[in-house]
Amino acid sequence: MVATVNENFDLIQNNYLFVEIARRVDEFQKQNPDVDLIKMGIGDVTRPLSKTVVKAFKDAVDEMGNADTFRGYGPEQGYDFLIEKIIENDYEPLGVELKNSEVFISDGAKCDTGNFQELFSQDNIIAVTDPVYPVYVDSNVMAGRSGKPQEDGFYENIVYLPATAENDFIPELPKEDVDIIYLCYPNNPTGTTLTYDQLKQWVDYAKENDALILFDAAYEAFIKSDDVPHSIYEIEGAKDVAIEFKSYSKVAGFTGTRCAYCVVPEEVTIKNSKGEDVQLTPLWNRRQSTKFNGVSYPVQKAAEAIYTPEGKKEIQEDLDYYVKNAQLIRQSLEDLGLDVYGGVDSPYIWVKTPNGIDSWEFFDILLNDANVVSTPGAGFGPSGEGYIRLTAFNTYEKTKEAMERIAQLEF
Amino acid sequence: MVATVNENFDLIQNNYLFVEIARRVDEFQKQNPDVDLIKMGIGDVTRPLSKTVVKAFKDAVDEMGNADTFRGYGPEQGYDFLIEKIIENDYEPLGVELKNSEVFISDGAKCDTGNFQELFSQDNIIAVTDPVYPVYVDSNVMAGRSGKPQEDGFYENIVYLPATAENDFIPELPKEDVDIIYLCYPNNPTGTTLTYDQLKQWVDYAKENDALILFDAAYEAFIKSDDVPHSIYEIEGAKDVAIEFKSYSKVAGFTGTRCAYCVVPEEVTIKNSKGEDVQLTPLWNRRQSTKFNGVSYPVQKAAEAIYTPEGKKEIQEDLDYYVKNAQLIRQSLEDLGLDVYGGVDSPYIWVKTPNGIDSWEFFDILLNDANVVSTPGAGFGPSGEGYIRLTAFNTYEKTKEAMERIAQLEF
Repeated sequence: MVATVNENFDLIQNNYLFVEIARRVDEFQKQNPDVDLIKMGIGDVTRPLSKTVVKAFKDAVDEMGNADTFRGYGPEQGYDFLIEKIIENDYEPLGVELKNSEVFISDGAKCDTGNFQELFSQDNIIAVTDPVYPVYVDSNVMAGRSGKPQEDGFYENIVYLPATAENDFIPELPKEDVDIIYLCYPNNPTGTTLTYDQLKQWVDYAKENDALILFDAAYEAFIKSDDVPHSIYEIEGAKDVAIEFKSYSKVAGFTGTRCAYCVVPEEVTIKNSKGEDVQLTPLWNRRQSTKFNGVSYPVQKAAEAIYTPEGKKEIQEDLDYYVKNAQLIRQSLEDLGLDVYGGVDSPYIWVKTPNGIDSWEFFDILLNDANVVSTPGAGFGPSGEGYIRLTAFNTYEKTKEAMERIAQLEF
Repeated sequence: MVATVNENFDLIQNNYLFVEIARRVDEFQKQNPDVDLIKMGIGDVTRPLSKTVVKAFKDAVDEMGNADTFRGYGPEQGYDFLIEKIIENDYEPLGVELKNSEVFISDGAKCDTGNFQELFSQDNIIAVTDPVYPVYVDSNVMAGRSGKPQEDGFYENIVYLPATAENDFIPELPKEDVDIIYLCYPNNPTGTTLTYDQLKQWVDYAKENDALILFDAAYEAFIKSDDVPHSIYEIEGAKDVAIEFKSYSKVAGFTGTRCAYCVVPEEVTIKNSKGEDVQLTPLWNRRQSTKFNGVSYPVQKAAEAIYTPEGKKEIQEDLDYYVKNAQLIRQSLEDLGLDVYGGVDSPYIWVKTPNGIDSWEFFDILLNDANVVSTPGAGFGPSGEGYIRLTAFNTYEKTKEAMERIAQLEF
């Protein structure tokens, strides 16, 4: 016998998107060390942690430095002090009731959405919207559920649901049989949303077809439109068929601090091979207890502070700041005659490339000629070809300058 | 089609060990609310974060609260400032050279040892010492490599290598063909070690048999004996066949702060189905890039402070404190006529139960009659039956009191 490798890793296409972007940016910067690049590519924030969050974070570090208040291993699922704030603030106002044991604190929605597929059998058929956040696909490729990549860029066993300007970025319900559906709304990368009625169709579909929805709501805090749900659990019956993932990364500048959570309602079941219902809450609990050791205590205290009155106010100011950037980007690019989507209930603006040039080419034009870093839409899947994504997370000043630089380009 | 569950989860035996202990302790505490339990069960520390660590941690939080010094997403692999300190301090003095790209910072050795098996094909044969830290087995059970549990407590497709008093806790090399070997030294749970010569036999075995060693060195900082290696890479040829996992949990009181690392040398290869060598470094890099988003920046700065001269001094004082506890436990229990192992180069003391009573029964006696929480050896595997584990991580005062309480018992 010899130790052998998981060859599913060979099936992953290219580099992880953001690693490839970083590589191209590094190369450009090495050749042009004096150029001041404006980064609107990776969805990373620029506003610092708020005062109230910093204070709570540091106070908790002090607790860790004192034998009387020191905390060692915490619950793998997260501390109740944070879970209770989540339920009270993020769900009760929506009319959604949850038990503490249904909420799991983690170090990132990327980790949660990447790891959750471990609970599923090998032969589930995965459906994703296209374009899509790469982690949903890549984590299933590694797990052996994808089959091989084909020439068109699609994996043979994954069902893709295109979301493009042609269908107003509202993917059609699957025509094929699918078991697990990844949805992300407000959408990464397109910045578009689903209304209550539109999302209800997905919940109804999942109920009728014994499918499960993995709902990534990492950008929920940016929703302003009245007809857009803040949680999938606002839709009747969703607790039976949906897991929800949320993150503090974009809400509260936690991309470098690391805290997120997912909700696994007790009602959610999928089937075993005998056709019996199996609850996912205890399975996820077991997965996390075995392979995870909880989030750093000071980080959980920092996250808790987001829910104080002062914390909420500070966070809202940062969100408003990014929304103003998004409006500026939308307006500026529309003024240039570009087709622009998203950016209303989302920090992401999805831009059709001009004159039918491809998205990596437009990425390179923006990088080389405007010194602006974007994300090429094709990196998010075949239906992302012909688009780029810009983020509203830079400073207002730099965002404004980026728009001025882009306005100088000739398409 | 219907969404179906990963039925390998059904094969996991009982609760995760420490969850079951917590359940029994909670039940006891509810019925005996006035009893002051002394916890020597879960390997959790009690000494607070050191002054230097606290200062670096808080300074980094301040950086996160300032727009000019704020850091968003960091490298998934960890910051170079910490990786460089690891190489300089933990490896160079041992004569082990590593590149930055071979060291991966994570939020815990539990996560790393649990996740690393994702890189292996389904049909690798796993070998573990028995008793064993449950994560190695459970993560492979979930992944479908174990086969079914049998009446004797062993999984049909896992090879167990007994380590008991009968073989001086030196497991024999596998007689069966095995591919992946989990070793943990200083050992959790027995507290025993391997000498250079003994560990060399494992490295030689792995080289001769195309096997891979996953070496968990989470307790390395407790090694005092000259003939015990601090890293598997001190053994010639180990870089070709071993991954090493380390953690700040026990070294620096990081159980609630969360930081660890693993080393994946470029030389380590396993085979693909064509019999070709495949490097594990890029595969682990890809796994981490896809499913992990790096450790909280302030936590990495806190870990970096461990390597300052003041940090090292403070950490050593804490380690000495626990070593003193371990010596006290060993001496006290030996004085009672018990057979005691470990506790020299390790914070764990492995105690033979008296009069052949089983380990959960001895756990209950210690809980109910001495109000001391231990860990039953059987929870670590069949060969742990007839032993309990005590940890040296409580305060000296409580450790002393626990020993006095145990001395009152009649076996």
